[in-house]
Amino acid sequence: MLAAELPTGLARELTNAVGGAHVLTDPEITAGFATDWTGRFRGHSPAVVRPGTTAQVAAVVSACARAGVAVVPQGGNTGLVGGGVPLRGEVVLSLVRLQDLGAVDVAAAQVTAGAGVTLARLQAHVAPHALAFGVDLAPRDSCTVGGMIATNAGGMHVVRYGTTRAQLMGIEAVLGDGRVVSHLGGLVKDNTGYDLAGLLTGSEGTLGVVTAARLRLVPLPRERATAAFGFERWTDAVDAVAVLRARVPGLEAVEVMVRAGVELVAGHHGWLPPPALLAPVSLLVDAIGEEDPLQELARAAGELTLVAEPAVATTPDQRQRLWAIREGHAEAINQLGAPLKLDVSVPAAAIAAFVAALPGLLPAGARLDLFGHLGDGNLHVNLTGIEGSPEPIEAAVLSAVVGAGGSISAEHGIGTAKAPYLHLCRTPAEIATFRAIKAALDPVGIMNPNAVLPPP
Amino acid sequence: MLAAELPTGLARELTNAVGGAHVLTDPEITAGFATDWTGRFRGHSPAVVRPGTTAQVAAVVSACARAGVAVVPQGGNTGLVGGGVPLRGEVVLSLVRLQDLGAVDVAAAQVTAGAGVTLARLQAHVAPHALAFGVDLAPRDSCTVGGMIATNAGGMHVVRYGTTRAQLMGIEAVLGDGRVVSHLGGLVKDNTGYDLAGLLTGSEGTLGVVTAARLRLVPLPRERATAAFGFERWTDAVDAVAVLRARVPGLEAVEVMVRAGVELVAGHHGWLPPPALLAPVSLLVDAIGEEDPLQELARAAGELTLVAEPAVATTPDQRQRLWAIREGHAEAINQLGAPLKLDVSVPAAAIAAFVAALPGLLPAGARLDLFGHLGDGNLHVNLTGIEGSPEPIEAAVLSAVVGAGGSISAEHGIGTAKAPYLHLCRTPAEIATFRAIKAALDPVGIMNPNAVLPPP
Repeated sequence: MLAAELPTGLARELTNAVGGAHVLTDPEITAGFATDWTGRFRGHSPAVVRPGTTAQVAAVVSACARAGVAVVPQGGNTGLVGGGVPLRGEVVLSLVRLQDLGAVDVAAAQVTAGAGVTLARLQAHVAPHALAFGVDLAPRDSCTVGGMIATNAGGMHVVRYGTTRAQLMGIEAVLGDGRVVSHLGGLVKDNTGYDLAGLLTGSEGTLGVVTAARLRLVPLPRERATAAFGFERWTDAVDAVAVLRARVPGLEAVEVMVRAGVELVAGHHGWLPPPALLAPVSLLVDAIGEEDPLQELARAAGELTLVAEPAVATTPDQRQRLWAIREGHAEAINQLGAPLKLDVSVPAAAIAAFVAALPGLLPAGARLDLFGHLGDGNLHVNLTGIEGSPEPIEAAVLSAVVGAGGSISAEHGIGTAKAPYLHLCRTPAEIATFRAIKAALDPVGIMNPNAVLPPP
Repeated sequence: MLAAELPTGLARELTNAVGGAHVLTDPEITAGFATDWTGRFRGHSPAVVRPGTTAQVAAVVSACARAGVAVVPQGGNTGLVGGGVPLRGEVVLSLVRLQDLGAVDVAAAQVTAGAGVTLARLQAHVAPHALAFGVDLAPRDSCTVGGMIATNAGGMHVVRYGTTRAQLMGIEAVLGDGRVVSHLGGLVKDNTGYDLAGLLTGSEGTLGVVTAARLRLVPLPRERATAAFGFERWTDAVDAVAVLRARVPGLEAVEVMVRAGVELVAGHHGWLPPPALLAPVSLLVDAIGEEDPLQELARAAGELTLVAEPAVATTPDQRQRLWAIREGHAEAINQLGAPLKLDVSVPAAAIAAFVAALPGLLPAGARLDLFGHLGDGNLHVNLTGIEGSPEPIEAAVLSAVVGAGGSISAEHGIGTAKAPYLHLCRTPAEIATFRAIKAALDPVGIMNPNAVLPPP
């Protein structure tokens, strides 16, 4: 439903639910909640509602369901596919006040966290117990537990611990009809009904809104070693991933960059990258372990086809300098203009051919920046300098991904940006099944109506 | 729907779908499909249908949906909660002819398997590539991939690799309306819509029937060491689990037994168990690794409070003898009479008190046998010698489990046996949500109608 202004009854109900101070309607304030990080997706909202408890979230969703007013849940607003902004005048349901963070259960290696807790705060909370959360992302100071669950966030450490879904031991959520489901006991074996936690993970707020989660934790690494390897060709880099997986038991991250991107980031900050990162293709690799993970990396290096001396970080400062180049990509690219961001995964055997075919799909004048998590076959394709509509290019690249047996959304989600392309990856029967599930959990159809499912 | 005999039109459709040779109606033959492994659950069926392809499964389910005739999917019929037998005259949909087993993708460490493939055949298929499936169960020669997915099977190695759900990279299934969903690409990162694989895992055939799955594989251990540790008290055994988890990186299995059970199994076969297994409580522990996992176990043993010399297996024969005692429990207990089997999990901190309270819940003359997967807090409570209705005892034990913060079904599923107790673990809102999901994927309500959800 489009809503330039809230119905009076609903405005009163929202104020009753969360208090007037937490219903923001000043357009200058709501504008910040209505534009995404890339600047590509801009909307507007009659109200940003900021509940402080799960019960308040339920009251807000119930009131909106009764009024038939659509709701867009929002966490740290770090999404890249327009899935967390009110594109058609929806109410924004901001979860950032759900800041509860339970005592760490050290024996079970678990913790319960509210949806609004940032990744950085979660990590700082569990680190004194020699534990860590198994998912790590560059926007760790802003992205929230709820947003990471809604998008089944991936990031750097999937090669070791899996995606966010694999970290969930239980969930609390408000479904589209205002019903609260909560199962936060954290039992490792618990076959009592359907897997609501897994179903809500990656559903992008279209079925309901996650308010808290019971999270599995992993041992905080005592030692971490970092190395950068430079390659002449993509096939050499892809082969290197297989060698690293086989030879480095402590493998934690395998990131890929190309020379043009490294030069862009380095130039932006005035840094001088090591020769390995100035190779045509480079990998940035982390390994952890009790013993000496650097030794593991050094042994594996002997089996790789390199074009430059590996760069090795032996101090936290050196490590930070290598990682800053990798993590600086998104921001440096954004300085070139709002990019068309495609987040895809491709089977290992098809990656080199896919990358080789990419430039042929682009119009003259377009700039291609490519980086990502090669350990998972996950590439971030960033396109800038496109004149006119980006849609033909987007369609061409995503068709090439599907032709290579890949996924049009590896970790960013479908959002609104990829919804028109969902049919490339999922059959009509699957999409019809998604719609049936959506209708079951969000019967009025108010939850994040622009995301995941294309208009029928 | 009760169906002593098939409607004529349906009988013809089933024969057309799978061929007359695969529609079994002779009561002497169907009886074997209508009784479960424990002998506690006995039903009857007008027909056992054995499709050979996913398309045939879809034709069978569609025909039954049109006729409004209920269907019970069945794999190896090794279930223990009455979830796979036709208790009220349903058609049995036997998946054992779905025997496709794809080439092993060594680079990705994945394989695609049909629902009817047994666990033992799957393991034998992938072992030559130095790979293994991460779930292991005692009935490995009978239990099938489809059944393991339907029940989210756990077993011995959950402490290392998680449950069956964690092994799934994709699924093919026929939903309750006959619709086929298939997503078997096996991409590690693929956020394109809702998690149907996770939702169907553990749904016990109530939403649809799994026909094939893309499975993650794990490295086949080069070295495996086995040790048995004996303890005076349950608290010592529970403490030992924490020590083993912290000190043995290659920990693969932590099984618990008690003296009476060990003596029962050993007496049954005329074996002489080592002193460690004749302690009041004992753990059977496997560790794997590249180096010397026996050394890891030996080091950890120094931190345990033991009452007997550990028994160590250094040859496959010795290993097999120790494990035969553990795996012989279910069969030896069955010889005492059809047992009341409760499969529960309890948080580590509550286990010793829960076990201590158990005898007080039982009537005079009842025999308690207790064993399980202590590494996951999963206990199998077996009760024999109960006069009269077992229900009051079942209710008392399951209430004690829930009082301890545990689950009434750790890994066996809800089936029909635990459906009346589902409300002990899940709230009315959660059960209503399960019903909504069931109605979405199985709109006519024909899929395994006796399992998971209690009658409304």
